Amino acid sequence: MALRACLRTKPGLTGLLSQLSSCSSHGAARMSPALVAQRRSSSTSQKIKVDFDQSTGVAVMRMQSPPVNSLSLEFLTDVCIALEKLEMDKSCRGLIVTSSQPKVFSAGLDILDMYGKSPEHCVEFWKAVQEMWLKFYGSNMITIAAVNGSSPAGGCLLSMTCDYRIMADNPRYSIGLNETQLGIVAPFWFKDTMINTVGHRTTEMALQLGLLYSPAEALKIGLVDQLVPEDQVLTTATETMTKWLAIPDHARQLTKSMMRKPTIDKLTSNREADVNNFVKFITKDSIQKSLGMYLEMLKRRKA
Amino acid sequence: MALRACLRTKPGLTGLLSQLSSCSSHGAARMSPALVAQRRSSSTSQKIKVDFDQSTGVAVMRMQSPPVNSLSLEFLTDVCIALEKLEMDKSCRGLIVTSSQPKVFSAGLDILDMYGKSPEHCVEFWKAVQEMWLKFYGSNMITIAAVNGSSPAGGCLLSMTCDYRIMADNPRYSIGLNETQLGIVAPFWFKDTMINTVGHRTTEMALQLGLLYSPAEALKIGLVDQLVPEDQVLTTATETMTKWLAIPDHARQLTKSMMRKPTIDKLTSNREADVNNFVKFITKDSIQKSLGMYLEMLKRRKA
Amino acid sequence: MALRACLRTKPGLTGLLSQLSSCSSHGAARMSPALVAQRRSSSTSQKIKVDFDQSTGVAVMRMQSPPVNSLSLEFLTDVCIALEKLEMDKSCRGLIVTSSQPKVFSAGLDILDMYGKSPEHCVEFWKAVQEMWLKFYGSNMITIAAVNGSSPAGGCLLSMTCDYRIMADNPRYSIGLNETQLGIVAPFWFKDTMINTVGHRTTEMALQLGLLYSPAEALKIGLVDQLVPEDQVLTTATETMTKWLAIPDHARQLTKSMMRKPTIDKLTSNREADVNNFVKFITKDSIQKSLGMYLEMLKRRKA
Repeated sequence: MALRACLRTKPGLTGLLSQLSSCSSHGAARMSPALVAQRRSSSTSQKIKVDFDQSTGVAVMRMQSPPVNSLSLEFLTDVCIALEKLEMDKSCRGLIVTSSQPKVFSAGLDILDMYGKSPEHCVEFWKAVQEMWLKFYGSNMITIAAVNGSSPAGGCLLSMTCDYRIMADNPRYSIGLNETQLGIVAPFWFKDTMINTVGHRTTEMALQLGLLYSPAEALKIGLVDQLVPEDQVLTTATETMTKWLAIPDHARQLTKSMMRKPTIDKLTSNREADVNNFVKFITKDSIQKSLGMYLEMLKRRKA
Repeated sequence: MALRACLRTKPGLTGLLSQLSSCSSHGAARMSPALVAQRRSSSTSQKIKVDFDQSTGVAVMRMQSPPVNSLSLEFLTDVCIALEKLEMDKSCRGLIVTSSQPKVFSAGLDILDMYGKSPEHCVEFWKAVQEMWLKFYGSNMITIAAVNGSSPAGGCLLSMTCDYRIMADNPRYSIGLNETQLGIVAPFWFKDTMINTVGHRTTEMALQLGLLYSPAEALKIGLVDQLVPEDQVLTTATETMTKWLAIPDHARQLTKSMMRKPTIDKLTSNREADVNNFVKFITKDSIQKSLGMYLEMLKRRKA
Repeated sequence: MALRACLRTKPGLTGLLSQLSSCSSHGAARMSPALVAQRRSSSTSQKIKVDFDQSTGVAVMRMQSPPVNSLSLEFLTDVCIALEKLEMDKSCRGLIVTSSQPKVFSAGLDILDMYGKSPEHCVEFWKAVQEMWLKFYGSNMITIAAVNGSSPAGGCLLSMTCDYRIMADNPRYSIGLNETQLGIVAPFWFKDTMINTVGHRTTEMALQLGLLYSPAEALKIGLVDQLVPEDQVLTTATETMTKWLAIPDHARQLTKSMMRKPTIDKLTSNREADVNNFVKFITKDSIQKSLGMYLEMLKRRKA
C-alpha cells in the first residue's frame, strides 16, 4: 500500500492523519523478537538509523519505519535503546531527530497496539510510550527535532520533547495533539509538555478540539520554533546545533534539568497509576468499538 | 434611568464601567422570594432567558437583567439554576451565553450586595459568586461567550469561564478585571482563571492596574479569541459551536476536566476560607466607606 | 580603565557583557566597613543615590557604582538598606530604579565576590543576592525599572523584579539571563522570575542558551514592556508611575502580593539549601578554574 495513494483519498489535514495512522498499521512489517534482539547490538536497527559524527559530537537519528513511522511497541523499544546508547556515550553531545519517510515525521502512537490487544500488551505498550517520553524529555543531550513532514499526536509529542523544533514550511503538513478527534484523551504528561511549550490557554483549546496546525500556525503559537524550505530542514538543524554546542554542557544540562524536572517527576511518581488509567480506558468496550469503527472506516476508504 | 443617559456623562472606559455598575444597582427591580421560586420551575426566569434547540443540542442563555446584567445574589441564583438544569439534560451539549441588554455583556458583581449589608448577606452573596464560577468553569458542556458589550470585573470572569470568547468589535466596549480601580481585590480564583487565559505577566499587570481592554487589545493579549461585527456575534458563536460539537463529548469533557481540575480543586478545598476572607475584607469600615463614596459619586454624576 | 575602551575591544553583545563584568571587578573602589556604616545613615551612599520627592511620593534610585554597577556584596548591602528605608516610609509609594553609569543598567553579580573567595564570603554574598531579590520582588511600592543600558544576568534579574520595565531603544544594549554562557547556572528563583515574566518555553530556551536580547527582541518576548529613545527613559518612567499611582495602594499591594507570594515563599522556605547549593557549586575546582580562565581572558583582551 503506497502512502501516496493513501494521501490521495482525503486531502484535509485531519484526513491526512487518519490515513497516515491507517497506513502505519498496515504497512509496517512485523519482525520476530529474535531479529529485533540481533539488530539492537548495532547502532542501526531496521527502523532507526543513527549516524554519529565523532568530530562534531552530533548524532542524527532517522526514523525509517514505513510508511509513516508509527510509534509501535517495537519501534519505541528500538528508539529507546538507540537513545540510551547515545546518552551513555559522553562524546555524543547533540541529537537531531528526523524522518526518512516522505511527507511524515511520525504519525504518532500505533493504533494496532491499542486495538484488540490483551491488557498485558497494552501495559507493555504504554510503558514504552512513557519510557520514550522520559528519555527524550530528560535527555542530557541537546535535542533538535527536524520535522520534515506531518507530526500528529505522538509525533507531535516526540517533537515537543526536544530542545528546538524546525519544521518544513509546507502547508500540506500539520502538527498537533489531535487525540480527541479520535475519541481518545491525551494523558496529563502530554498536556504538561504542551503547556510548557505553548502555554495554558493555547493548550486548552488545542487539546479540547484536537487541533492540527499548519506550519505557519504552529510557528505563530510557538509549537515550532522555525520554518524553513523542506530541503533545508536538516541543514538548518545542523547549523542550529552548532549554536547550542557553544554552551558549556554542564551548565546547559543543569539548566535543562531545572526547567523540566517538576514535569518529569510528576510522571515518574505516577507511572503505575498512569498505566492503569490508560489500560482501563483503552480496553473499554466503547473505546475499542470506536477504534474498530475508525479502522473499518479507513479500510473502506482505501478500498 | 436610561442606560444611554448613564453612558453620556463620562465617555472613558473606566467611566463606562462605573456608570454601568451604578445603573445596575438602581435600575434592577427587586423581586419577592415567592416570585423567584415560581419562575424557577420554568427554563426562563425574568432575568434569564434560555432557548434550547433539541435538534442541535445547543442552548442559548440570554442575560436580561436591566440595565446592565449586574451579578446580584438573585441573578446569580437564577443563572446557576438554569445552568444546572441544562447540565443535567444529557441532550444539551453546548451553551452560548450572551446578553439581551444593549451595550453590555455583564457589568459584574452587584455592588449593592456588598454595601451596607449584614455579614450573613455577604456570606450568601459570595457563595453564589463561587457557585457560578464552579458551575461554569467546570461545565461538561461546550461553553461559548458571545460578548456583545462591555464586560468588566465579574462580567469578564464569567466570559473567561467559557471555552471560547467572541467579542463585538466595537472600540467603545471594554473587558477586564478592574477590581483594583474600585479599591477592591480580585480573589485568587479570579486571578487563576485569568492566568490560565492570558498568562502570568499579563495578569499581574492587568490586575495591579485594574486594566480594561478594548476589543482589539483583548484579542491581542488573548483575553478574547475572536472579534466580529456587533451584529454577527451570536451567529458566529453558533457557527463556532458546530466545530466544537464535532468532537466526541467524552474525550472533550475528560480533556477539559484535566485542564481545569487543579484550578477548580483549589477553590473547592478553600471555599470557606475564601468566603471568610471576602466577608472580613468587604465589611471593613474603610472598604465600606470607599464603596459608599463611590456610590455617592455616581449619584452626583447622574444628578 | 575606561568603560569605553573596554567596549571597543569586542562589539558583540556577549562580548559586551564579558567586558562589562570585567570592568566592574576592576573599576570598583573598595571601601572600609566604617566608611560604609557612616554613609548608611544618609539616604545616599557613594554607590546609590536616592532622591525622594515628598510631593509625588516617588523615589528615584540611581545606581552609581563605576564602571558598570556590578552587584557586589557591598553594593547589594547598600541597595537593600536604601530599599528598606523607603519601604518603611509610608509616604513613599513608588520607586524608579535607574543607572547613572553610561551604557549600562547593571552588569549583574560581581564575579570577584565569587572567585577565589572563602566559602564564608560566598555565603554572605549569596545571602545578599537573595535579600536583594526578596526585597524588590516583594516590595509594597510600585517599582519601575528605567533600563537605560545593558542589563545582563543579575542586572536583568533586578529589572524583572520590578512592576514595569522601560528600556532605552538602543540596539547596542542587551538584556537577559546569560549565566550558562559563563558556565554557571541561574538558580531556581531567577528561573521562576523569568517564567513569571516571559513564560515557560521562552525561559527554557533563554536560560539554556544564555540568550541576551536586543531591546526590540526583549520587547517582542515581553522581557521589557516598553522601548523609548534613550534620553526619554526616565521621563517615561515618571509618566508611567503617575498611572500606577492612580490605583489605591491597599488594593494594588494585596494584588501584587497574591501574584508573587508563591514564588517568594519558594525561596523563603529554601534559603539555606539555596545558599548551600550555590556555595558548593561555585567553590568547585572546575567552576573556579573556568571563572579564573574567564578573568584571565578578559585581562589579556584589555592588555
